[in-house]
Amino acid sequence: MRIVIPLFERFTALDAVGPYDVLTHLPGAEVVLAAAEAGPVRDGAGRLALTADAALADITACDVLVVPGGPGARDYPADGPLLDWLRRTHEGTRWTTSVCTGSLLLGAAGLLTGRTATTHWARTGQLATYGATYTPERVVVDGKLITAAGVSAGLDMALTLVALLADQLTAEAIQLLIEYDPQPPFDAGSLAKASPAARERLRTL
Amino acid sequence: MRIVIPLFERFTALDAVGPYDVLTHLPGAEVVLAAAEAGPVRDGAGRLALTADAALADITACDVLVVPGGPGARDYPADGPLLDWLRRTHEGTRWTTSVCTGSLLLGAAGLLTGRTATTHWARTGQLATYGATYTPERVVVDGKLITAAGVSAGLDMALTLVALLADQLTAEAIQLLIEYDPQPPFDAGSLAKASPAARERLRTL
Repeated sequence: MRIVIPLFERFTALDAVGPYDVLTHLPGAEVVLAAAEAGPVRDGAGRLALTADAALADITACDVLVVPGGPGARDYPADGPLLDWLRRTHEGTRWTTSVCTGSLLLGAAGLLTGRTATTHWARTGQLATYGATYTPERVVVDGKLITAAGVSAGLDMALTLVALLADQLTAEAIQLLIEYDPQPPFDAGSLAKASPAARERLRTL
Repeated sequence: MRIVIPLFERFTALDAVGPYDVLTHLPGAEVVLAAAEAGPVRDGAGRLALTADAALADITACDVLVVPGGPGARDYPADGPLLDWLRRTHEGTRWTTSVCTGSLLLGAAGLLTGRTATTHWARTGQLATYGATYTPERVVVDGKLITAAGVSAGLDMALTLVALLADQLTAEAIQLLIEYDPQPPFDAGSLAKASPAARERLRTL
């Protein structure tokens, strides 16, 4: 089973690496990082580069797509190499998934028309412009499309995906392996939970 | 404020990237990935490389250390370049932190003697050999040492660290930004919660 994570300039590292570190433990899965060209791809924060081991053009099919988001996903050019590749590759996938604003890339590729989907809380309006119905859940499954909310939701999505690809016991085993027993020190991880003061602080960051 | 994440062959990507994607949003912080030599460093799963932008030898001081774990941390050679560097750099840090088996590197460097600390649940015995007292908590603060439990605990540690470096409101703002409102689809993220069947499945992965 081949799982491809396509990278692009100014992606969010955790969007890609959260699912990566879950899915690499799935028996029989080969995870491949790909980009327009093989080589290092710089993230949105600019202090990190992940190496793409393959060029998109060299990948004509895969079983699972995991599309990360990031600043570069919000304004990805309509004629960029990724969108055509997503359209073509999606036709043959078993599951096409996204994390955070990765759903905007799926939308820009025309794959979310008439579908329910989620994205980062700050980008729900842009999601709607692609004909998708925003659903305020952490992981949304619609047919073979699975979209996740912002950044860290990729972990919850990837465990859901493992249960679909293998079974719940395998997902639980991987959850134990990565000790995913979250205990955030604060309770501000959603718009509904964050205080007005925390939202105001975020605007200044 | 300079935050350094030292990489080594066979590190666990999420151990590094979880804290990275929290700490890069901290105002005034410069996050640097470093390794024995600058360039790509391959992770433990082998399907990913992160680029180290600096060589350890070029970094003589930093404010915060974030040491990831991974398969390469469990058997890191006693005369490898990282341990001496950790010992020297730790002297000047404000906070020295680890994720998962990164604490074994701190231990091998002699920095945990007589301290309370945590690590991945499967490596508590090795932690004790370095003179540390294992504490079964997700994030353990002892003086300027902060250790986190396995892999995904780096997110909880990093938010704790932001509150210490800046304030709670900044940590909450970053938590909202990365939408860290975890909703794991299963409840198997610790030894106490995972079923015997899930633990058995993990042994077969």
